[in-house]
Amino acid sequence: MCAPDVLAAVGERLGRREFLKWGGAAAAAGILAGCGGSRASGAGVSLRVRNVQGLTHTLNSAFPIWPGFAPIQITNVRSFEKDGFFANTWQAPEHHGTHVDAPIHFGKGAWSADQIPDQALVSPVVLIHVHDRAESNPDTQVTVEDLRAWERQHGKIPEGAAVLMHSGWEARAGDINSFRNMDGKGTMHFPGFSKEAAEFLLKERTINGIGVDTLSLDHGASQDFAVHFGLLPANKWGIENLANLAKIPPAGATLFVGLPKVQGASGGTARILAVW
Amino acid sequence: MCAPDVLAAVGERLGRREFLKWGGAAAAAGILAGCGGSRASGAGVSLRVRNVQGLTHTLNSAFPIWPGFAPIQITNVRSFEKDGFFANTWQAPEHHGTHVDAPIHFGKGAWSADQIPDQALVSPVVLIHVHDRAESNPDTQVTVEDLRAWERQHGKIPEGAAVLMHSGWEARAGDINSFRNMDGKGTMHFPGFSKEAAEFLLKERTINGIGVDTLSLDHGASQDFAVHFGLLPANKWGIENLANLAKIPPAGATLFVGLPKVQGASGGTARILAVW
Repeated sequence: MCAPDVLAAVGERLGRREFLKWGGAAAAAGILAGCGGSRASGAGVSLRVRNVQGLTHTLNSAFPIWPGFAPIQITNVRSFEKDGFFANTWQAPEHHGTHVDAPIHFGKGAWSADQIPDQALVSPVVLIHVHDRAESNPDTQVTVEDLRAWERQHGKIPEGAAVLMHSGWEARAGDINSFRNMDGKGTMHFPGFSKEAAEFLLKERTINGIGVDTLSLDHGASQDFAVHFGLLPANKWGIENLANLAKIPPAGATLFVGLPKVQGASGGTARILAVW
Repeated sequence: MCAPDVLAAVGERLGRREFLKWGGAAAAAGILAGCGGSRASGAGVSLRVRNVQGLTHTLNSAFPIWPGFAPIQITNVRSFEKDGFFANTWQAPEHHGTHVDAPIHFGKGAWSADQIPDQALVSPVVLIHVHDRAESNPDTQVTVEDLRAWERQHGKIPEGAAVLMHSGWEARAGDINSFRNMDGKGTMHFPGFSKEAAEFLLKERTINGIGVDTLSLDHGASQDFAVHFGLLPANKWGIENLANLAKIPPAGATLFVGLPKVQGASGGTARILAVW
């Protein structure tokens, strides 16, 4: 048996309010079952969530979208005045707003949105900051050295990780031209993952997917979409246009990828949450 | 300081594979920080997720929908053959498949999908089984006594709970007529929450929302939508057409509500995950 003060300390650690919210003594009993405590039900250990951070931009028709695609259109179909309740319908592209690229987007025969195992939508976060470089160089990319530097500080990239790039690009999301950052020749300039970093994550580590706060997993000037073609056909997902990455820790958070389960979908606008 | 065997016991509790996956000793150190351990970063306590269960039906145009609404239409817009990659667009009603009713759906001025705080999308699960009654009585409803019976077994309904009804109705989801279960007069018959249970949850407990495995929070024969009108205007959400509720524990799981963050939306098709 654990000493009672250990049980009390767990409660203190969680904070009294959260401790009660998440089941109080029952949760602590679960946490400490390895100390010899017994549990009344087969319910499993309650999660102890102290922080929830949304990583999702609000989506409307003005949100930046990849050139050549039609933005979401939201049409009202039921109103309080006429019907007593309220509802809309959307003409929604699969790749607008904060959204997921399902593996089938660039991998013929790879997983569509409904085929991604739910377990692959719950992932430990590895957050790579490149915002310092991005301020002066919009073509900067996440390198293998960035990944190795993270590992020197936080340990090996965990199995099933979501490796996320924070470039600070979301500050431009209110202006489609600034977000795309297109030059006179029509080439866009924004940060993304390098081909080599994607290869490292695919071959040397075991990840669930990657994410960026820009329009594309590949940097804007990429002509070959090497990151898309490297990772997606291997059944890794990608998330584009993430928000609020500056507000989560570099390690220790868990990502929930709320991708609608639409049959055959190549992706979709999604609610992304980080908890820790 | 805690004894080393407590640290080891936490690892054992998690299972070696999960222990390593979720950060190993670092996670244990976080869990046991209350014992006097120190932590290297501000990363917070890693979650220890042993089970992930999807609660989402795959959505296609054949999935049952409320009478009078047009089902999702999925249109291909990019193909491997022509474009080198694959993408679709959806004409998607906000209330089809496993989906969320945002508070604004029945509450003028209440939260739209984008206004729901992210914290309200992460909730301890309270699972109410009514499938035994539903087999013989499709009009059965979740009662206040069902909620009190759950509390006698598991303790008070936790703050911020997601109270979910399992009626077994998903077995009918492949047949729209069986799922709606409409009689000769056009009245549908399937289980839902009772008005009294909704009032109890609103006034006597503090919940985030409720969910059902049928077409509506209200039972099918309801003529007044009392549960919708009772809960949604008070900024509680609802989830309809949940799947796999028989596979999660009655208490102890955490629900993640992956509702797309579409501006002004009255709801939307959503990915729902339970973890414990």
